[in-house]
Amino acid sequence: MSHDEEVTRQMASRIAQHRDRFQDLFQRYFAQLHATADAPELSRFAPECLRMVEELALRGGKRQRVAFAYEAANLTPGGTTTEKAVDIAALSIELLQAHLLIHDDIIDNAATRRGGPSTYYAYRDKLPGHPQHALGLAVLAGDLALVLSQQVIADAGLEPWLAQTMMTLQNKASLSTFVGQVFDLERDFLGVPDEELLHSVCDYKAARSSALAPLQLGLLAAEQDPKEHEPALRRYATSFGISGQMRDDYLSLFGSEEVTGKPATADVADGRVTYLIRRTLLAASDSERKLLASVLGQAGATETDVDTVREIVTAHGADQSLLADMRRFAELASTEAEQWASWAEADAVAFFRDVPVWGVQRLL
Amino acid sequence: MSHDEEVTRQMASRIAQHRDRFQDLFQRYFAQLHATADAPELSRFAPECLRMVEELALRGGKRQRVAFAYEAANLTPGGTTTEKAVDIAALSIELLQAHLLIHDDIIDNAATRRGGPSTYYAYRDKLPGHPQHALGLAVLAGDLALVLSQQVIADAGLEPWLAQTMMTLQNKASLSTFVGQVFDLERDFLGVPDEELLHSVCDYKAARSSALAPLQLGLLAAEQDPKEHEPALRRYATSFGISGQMRDDYLSLFGSEEVTGKPATADVADGRVTYLIRRTLLAASDSERKLLASVLGQAGATETDVDTVREIVTAHGADQSLLADMRRFAELASTEAEQWASWAEADAVAFFRDVPVWGVQRLL
Repeated sequence: MSHDEEVTRQMASRIAQHRDRFQDLFQRYFAQLHATADAPELSRFAPECLRMVEELALRGGKRQRVAFAYEAANLTPGGTTTEKAVDIAALSIELLQAHLLIHDDIIDNAATRRGGPSTYYAYRDKLPGHPQHALGLAVLAGDLALVLSQQVIADAGLEPWLAQTMMTLQNKASLSTFVGQVFDLERDFLGVPDEELLHSVCDYKAARSSALAPLQLGLLAAEQDPKEHEPALRRYATSFGISGQMRDDYLSLFGSEEVTGKPATADVADGRVTYLIRRTLLAASDSERKLLASVLGQAGATETDVDTVREIVTAHGADQSLLADMRRFAELASTEAEQWASWAEADAVAFFRDVPVWGVQRLL
Repeated sequence: MSHDEEVTRQMASRIAQHRDRFQDLFQRYFAQLHATADAPELSRFAPECLRMVEELALRGGKRQRVAFAYEAANLTPGGTTTEKAVDIAALSIELLQAHLLIHDDIIDNAATRRGGPSTYYAYRDKLPGHPQHALGLAVLAGDLALVLSQQVIADAGLEPWLAQTMMTLQNKASLSTFVGQVFDLERDFLGVPDEELLHSVCDYKAARSSALAPLQLGLLAAEQDPKEHEPALRRYATSFGISGQMRDDYLSLFGSEEVTGKPATADVADGRVTYLIRRTLLAASDSERKLLASVLGQAGATETDVDTVREIVTAHGADQSLLADMRRFAELASTEAEQWASWAEADAVAFFRDVPVWGVQRLL
C-alpha cells in the first residue's frame, strides 16, 4: 500500500467515526423536532414538508463539513471544547447545507441529489400535474431548513455571546454562498471565463460554507477566537475548496453515477463551463468547439453525447492537466495546515494536513 | 366627519409618522449595506441582486408592522425603550417581509407586487429567454433578504441576550409563516374548506409575522418580557390578522388595482378559495357553481370573468356578510386591546384599540 493510500484509509476511518457520531445526533434532532414543531392540526402537508427536509438531510454522504468542525475543535491546546457546542455547530452546518442543496436543485432544475430525488423533484412526483405547487413547496422546504440552521443554535442554551457569534458566522457563510450562487448563474452570460473567475465563484459558493465556516465554528466551540487565525483559515479553505471543485468537475464527466449521485448526462445537459470544460474549449479546434456547443447545454443529452465530450477533453489532455492542478491545490492546503503546528495540537493538524490528499485520492 | 372617520384620519397620520421615520432609516441601512457587502469584484449580478431586494423592500406601503413595533415599545410604563433596539427590530421585520414577498411571488407565479413587478418577474424582464436563471436569481434574492433580517440584529451591538431573543422571535415568526404558506398551498387539494381552516391558515401565514412578532419585538426593545402577555398578544394578533385577511379577500375582487397593487384578474386567475369565494360557493346554485368553476383558476381571466364572479358574490350577499365579519374580528381585537389598560400606557393602548378600525375603514 502506498503512503497516499495508507493516508486515505486512515482518513476515511477517522471521518467515518465523526459521521457515525453525527448521524445519530442528527436523527435524534429530527425526532425531537417532529415532536415539538408547531403546525396546524388540520395540515398534512406541513409535517410532510419537515420530513422532506429530514429525508434529504439524513441522506448525507461523507459529512466532510462535520469532520472539519469536530477536528477544528481539537486544534487548540488548552481549548475548553464543550462537546455540546460542537454538536450544535455540526447540526447547524448540515441544516444550512440541506437548505443550500434544496434551493440549488430548484435553481439548476436538477432531478437527482445524493443518489436520490432532489426535494423539488420528489415533490413533483408526489403531486403529478401540479408543478407550480411542487416548486412552491420545495422553496418553502429550503426556507425551513435555513431558519432551522439558525434556530438550532438559539435553542441550545449556549452562552448568549457564543450563540450570537455562531449565528453570525453561519449568516456570513450563507451570504457568501448566495453571492457565489448568483455569480455562478452570471457565468452563463460571460462566455469562457478566466480561471481566476472560476476560483472566485468556488471560493464564495463552496469554500466558505463547506470549509471556512466549519473550521471557524469548531474553534469557536473550543472557546477560541477564530479571528486570530482568519487569514490562515481562509487560505486553507480556498485551496481545499478549489481542489475539491476540480475533483467534482472531473468526476461529473469521468466519475460513476454511484459516486457523484447523479448521471453524467445531467451535467452535460446542464452545460456549465466548468474548470474542465473551460480548458477544453480553449484548447479545442474550431470544429471540436462547434461539436461541443452542439452537445453542451442541450436538454436530453445522451451517453453518446457524454462520450463525445470525453473524447475531446482527453484528446487535449485537459483531464490530466486538471488532475495535476487539483493535486497542486490540495498540496497548497496541506502546506498551509502544516504551518498551524506553531499554535495547534499535532493530531488535529495532521488531520487538516492529510484531508486534502484524502479528498483528491478517493473515488478516482 | 363620523367618529370612525376621525379615528381613521388620526391613525393614518400617526402611522405615516412611523413610516416616514422608518423609510429614512431603511434607506440608510441599504446604503451602508451596499458600501460594505462582500461580493466578488468581477460580479455585476451580485450587487444587482442586493439592489433587487432593496427595490422591493423600499417600495413598502403603509408599514403597519413597523408602526406595531414602535407603538408596542411604548406600551409598558417604566419600559426603558432604547430607540436603537426598536429601530433594529423594525429593520428586521421589514427585511423578513421582503423575503416572504419575494418567495411568495415565486410560489404563486405572481407578476405584480406593491404596484410594481415582483422580483421574479423583474428578473424575467431583465433576462428575456432565460426564465430558469430568473427563477434562480429570485430564489437567491429571497434567501439573501432572510439572512439579512437575522444579521441586522446580530450586527447592531445590542446586548447578546437581547439580540438572541429578538432573533429567536423572528425565527419563530418565519417558521410559522412557512408552515402557513405550506398549509395555504395544501388548501388547493382540499375542496371547499371550513372557515376554521381558513382562520388557521391566516393565523400561521400572516398574523404571526405581521402582528404578533412586531408586538413582541416592540415590547422586548423596551426590555419587557413579551411572554408575560403572550395569550393576550396572540388573541389580538389572530383577530387583527383575520380581519385584515377578510379585507384583502374583499379588496382582491372589489378593490381598485391602485389600492391592492395588482389587478383583480390576477386573483381570479389564481383561483384560490378565499373567505369570500368560500361563502359564495356554499351559497351558489349548481349552475352558478359551474360558472365559477369555469372562471376561477383559469390563466388569462378577463375583466368580464371578474364581473361574472362579482355578480354571483353580490347576488348571495357574500360581500356584505364578509364585511360584517371583518368588522366583528376588528372589534374583537379592539376589545382585547382595551383590556391592556391594566398594565400598559393609555396612549399606546389607544393605538392598538383603534388600529383595527383603521384597518377595515381605509380603502373601502
